[in-house]
Amino acid sequence: MISVVIIGLGNIGTHLYTAFSKLDNVAITMLYNRTEEALLPFKSSVKTTTDSKQLPDADVYIIATSDDSIALVSAQLTLENKLVVHTSGSVSIGVLDAKNRKGSFYPLQTFSKGATVNFKEIPICIEAENKADEAVLLQLAENVSSSVHKISSEQRKSIHLAAVFVNNFSNHMYQIGQEICEENNVPFSILSPLIQETTAKLNKLSPYEAQTGPAKRNDISTMQRHLTELTNNTHKDIYSVISKSITNSYGKKL
Amino acid sequence: MISVVIIGLGNIGTHLYTAFSKLDNVAITMLYNRTEEALLPFKSSVKTTTDSKQLPDADVYIIATSDDSIALVSAQLTLENKLVVHTSGSVSIGVLDAKNRKGSFYPLQTFSKGATVNFKEIPICIEAENKADEAVLLQLAENVSSSVHKISSEQRKSIHLAAVFVNNFSNHMYQIGQEICEENNVPFSILSPLIQETTAKLNKLSPYEAQTGPAKRNDISTMQRHLTELTNNTHKDIYSVISKSITNSYGKKL
Repeated sequence: MISVVIIGLGNIGTHLYTAFSKLDNVAITMLYNRTEEALLPFKSSVKTTTDSKQLPDADVYIIATSDDSIALVSAQLTLENKLVVHTSGSVSIGVLDAKNRKGSFYPLQTFSKGATVNFKEIPICIEAENKADEAVLLQLAENVSSSVHKISSEQRKSIHLAAVFVNNFSNHMYQIGQEICEENNVPFSILSPLIQETTAKLNKLSPYEAQTGPAKRNDISTMQRHLTELTNNTHKDIYSVISKSITNSYGKKL
Repeated sequence: MISVVIIGLGNIGTHLYTAFSKLDNVAITMLYNRTEEALLPFKSSVKTTTDSKQLPDADVYIIATSDDSIALVSAQLTLENKLVVHTSGSVSIGVLDAKNRKGSFYPLQTFSKGATVNFKEIPICIEAENKADEAVLLQLAENVSSSVHKISSEQRKSIHLAAVFVNNFSNHMYQIGQEICEENNVPFSILSPLIQETTAKLNKLSPYEAQTGPAKRNDISTMQRHLTELTNNTHKDIYSVISKSITNSYGKKL
């Protein structure tokens, strides 16, 4: 049995609570949140507190607050020599206060409040300062996910950066696609099968192998026509710089 | 019964042949290709020719060659007053030779040779110069797809441009994500669930609603740290220009 205290009931904290509460061999000893309001939905099922000095004994304390507040929250804990981890992709475990043992428990997914997620398929990146703590986090992670990875703070930062490209930036490409469709009275849904196929291809091909389009072919006349068709100057800049990057990456290797 | 001649057996021509040949109410009267080699796999099932002067009578002639050669191929046809369409997303029907009736039959998908596709789910954009020809194309398209759209040449060009963003450019974001992972000895597959979830979200939310990340939050310190972490100058440029576009689009509307 692993006992857990969750600190912060935002998106990730709530999703972790939901996942852990289904498990026989994980006990959620307490939920902490700065304000009472976020705790209300949980009060009938689990002990809650708004007083960070009242945290009970537990094997793991998970700080699931925003990146900026992790250092402060960990400094305010009155615990000592406990395993305290955060859930952030971009923050080193070094920001955690030194009076406790540091670690990270980072579920690599985009969480939306209200949306259900299948935790079994979400990769969890764990990090600890010593083997015993690592073993506890490994056991906790393997209880909820079939994809657990030991990842250093440096590696985790690189994953978070890569995630910005594959998630945030891809999504912005969809937004631009939608704006172009709307300007021309075309339903954006017409592009849905293409979007789904673009990601489905990754099961068989690397992105490098899967690439198609005018930039890959260095089809200058099509690219120039596209640039004149774009009405938004920022979209023109994006078109130019990504096309240049694609052309360069094939020019180099072909 | 609609009779069809397919002109050009590249990716799209081959996929169209495969889809049409399964249908009872579409007859493929002949396949034409400039070279004999591409016709060999089909010779046992259908009439083929390398002589563009030998094309038989048919309801629709589909030019499925590369964008650059559509005008030339259509000019070389010895047909007159037939319905001749191309399959290109980015070419106006105006490039087709005026001695025949012009149209377009554009399946909106990324085709790879050898990969099987479910044509039923592929949107097909049709265009013709008159209602009678449009009806023929509509009937042909509805035989293979459950998503058929009447789309003008101008609209089709905008769809093709939007497709460059959602398909080609998203895929390049995946490639950059993979390069960042490889530099840091992280398996790219760790990002697969995130990539799948990013597109799955579009079934419920618009891209504008689904956006997350430092640029949306205008989290300048994270963005600056990411820029120092990137080792490739072109990737830095891409990061900056897309982040600026995201920040602007939320700054305007929030």
